[in-house]
Amino acid sequence: MKDFAAQDENYESRVRESFSKQNLMKTIGASLTKVLPGEVEISLGFRDDLTQQHGFIHAGVVSTLADTACGYAAFSLMAPDAAVLTVEYKINLLSPAVGESLVARGKVTKSGRTLTVCAGDVFALKNGEKKMVATMIATIMSIPGREGLMG
Amino acid sequence: MKDFAAQDENYESRVRESFSKQNLMKTIGASLTKVLPGEVEISLGFRDDLTQQHGFIHAGVVSTLADTACGYAAFSLMAPDAAVLTVEYKINLLSPAVGESLVARGKVTKSGRTLTVCAGDVFALKNGEKKMVATMIATIMSIPGREGLMG
Amino acid sequence: MKDFAAQDENYESRVRESFSKQNLMKTIGASLTKVLPGEVEISLGFRDDLTQQHGFIHAGVVSTLADTACGYAAFSLMAPDAAVLTVEYKINLLSPAVGESLVARGKVTKSGRTLTVCAGDVFALKNGEKKMVATMIATIMSIPGREGLMG
Amino acid sequence: MKDFAAQDENYESRVRESFSKQNLMKTIGASLTKVLPGEVEISLGFRDDLTQQHGFIHAGVVSTLADTACGYAAFSLMAPDAAVLTVEYKINLLSPAVGESLVARGKVTKSGRTLTVCAGDVFALKNGEKKMVATMIATIMSIPGREGLMG
Repeated sequence: MKDFAAQDENYESRVRESFSKQNLMKTIGASLTKVLPGEVEISLGFRDDLTQQHGFIHAGVVSTLADTACGYAAFSLMAPDAAVLTVEYKINLLSPAVGESLVARGKVTKSGRTLTVCAGDVFALKNGEKKMVATMIATIMSIPGREGLMG
Repeated sequence: MKDFAAQDENYESRVRESFSKQNLMKTIGASLTKVLPGEVEISLGFRDDLTQQHGFIHAGVVSTLADTACGYAAFSLMAPDAAVLTVEYKINLLSPAVGESLVARGKVTKSGRTLTVCAGDVFALKNGEKKMVATMIATIMSIPGREGLMG
Repeated sequence: MKDFAAQDENYESRVRESFSKQNLMKTIGASLTKVLPGEVEISLGFRDDLTQQHGFIHAGVVSTLADTACGYAAFSLMAPDAAVLTVEYKINLLSPAVGESLVARGKVTKSGRTLTVCAGDVFALKNGEKKMVATMIATIMSIPGREGLMG
Repeated sequence: MKDFAAQDENYESRVRESFSKQNLMKTIGASLTKVLPGEVEISLGFRDDLTQQHGFIHAGVVSTLADTACGYAAFSLMAPDAAVLTVEYKINLLSPAVGESLVARGKVTKSGRTLTVCAGDVFALKNGEKKMVATMIATIMSIPGREGLMG
């Protein structure tokens, strides 16, 4: 994958502002830990109230982190007035999401005028080791000039 | 899709018990509203703390509901000592998830010894109307005799 | 899934003309066996030169049929001057593709201005029985007014 | 992604022998151009009889190459008596598949006892330039000791 240039110099504040409006991110305790043109990382400390029946972080939370990282990776390359929507994604859960924290990294694979394709990977950090727990491909849509949906 | 018969007559209590151990379901306020052999529904009332930046229910929550409904639809057909894990899923978000509540329905498409394939659909209920907001295909794995992971 | 109305009364001839330009369909011997607004079926007789290592029809051929059926199901609802492109799809192979013939059915789940989401199912016909061998979700894009790509 | 070690020292001949039994590969003119533990490349020269309606290589052929490369990447790490089956895959088509030839590369992301997850990328070579035209995630299954299905 190549590096990308942002068309909007304020891409980082635009991403951070939109992220701050996602109430779900506050609810699950996720935070934006990297914002680059075409690449975003979101981190989450382990919390017992986000688990599935075996005590691992629920696949739905893992997906939420990866989807959001992919969405903002795409959003970082969009025009200032564009809104971002997830069209679809596919995720494989590779290993149980256990450990002290999770880091989801979204990277743009192909940036298009309307659609952007991203790759997302989620890692669990445990006792100083980093293990890949999920991998995603996501299709993200740019909706230009929709002021009601900005961000 | 055809109807399925459960091999475990206690399938419903087994599903309900496992669901009750998913802390994330309590955290987001989701409840099991239908449990049949090969078909499960999960419902969620709209909550402002589960939204994305435009005020819709976050795609991650929509996916969580559909994934969980698919997982338990598969689990309902499994042997009593099997554990259930999501291998992967793919979801398309069709319309904004807005309204009074969401209902996710998971149905088994093909039940195999190791792998079960399910179809998941999520509907939003708003002013008495029901609108499809997402569609999923999920691959679910049965892990037999793993007592540590039962449920 | 609901029924759809075609905005172009010549949708069937438009689908058939575009299909006839797909050289791959001739190469593998596939034919259009149903064209309705939002629903298309493609059939293929078993051929030994389309198999994988175990003598089943190759998953790639099964996918090709389902993808093409989904693409034309979407195309049947598009404006007369639109070109159709597959954005992405996901397919689960449920059973070996064996028998006298395969039938792939693509149906529109959600028709949008730019993107259309379709469900594809592939069935094998063997000794008078019909068995589902694959299931797909596909995202199809309409590209309006691109004369160079019409069809 | 890390490097993998093959458990079967004859992995390459096993992959090549199975590939040679895929009649579809002969029919479309594809050849195995790299076989490493956990990584396989398949190449295809442009052919007019493999196109869709705009003259590009059909998405179904692009998918076939990527699926097959992923399947054999997984197969290279399996035990000598295992059969390989594709459970499912998801592919995004990024750019038109045009040029002199296509190269599909499948790499193992996670190798498990029963399931292996692979990443597939397809590139078009045109006038000395290499362009990514598709990206895939595939889930591949190992079926041990099924002599009737060996390879």
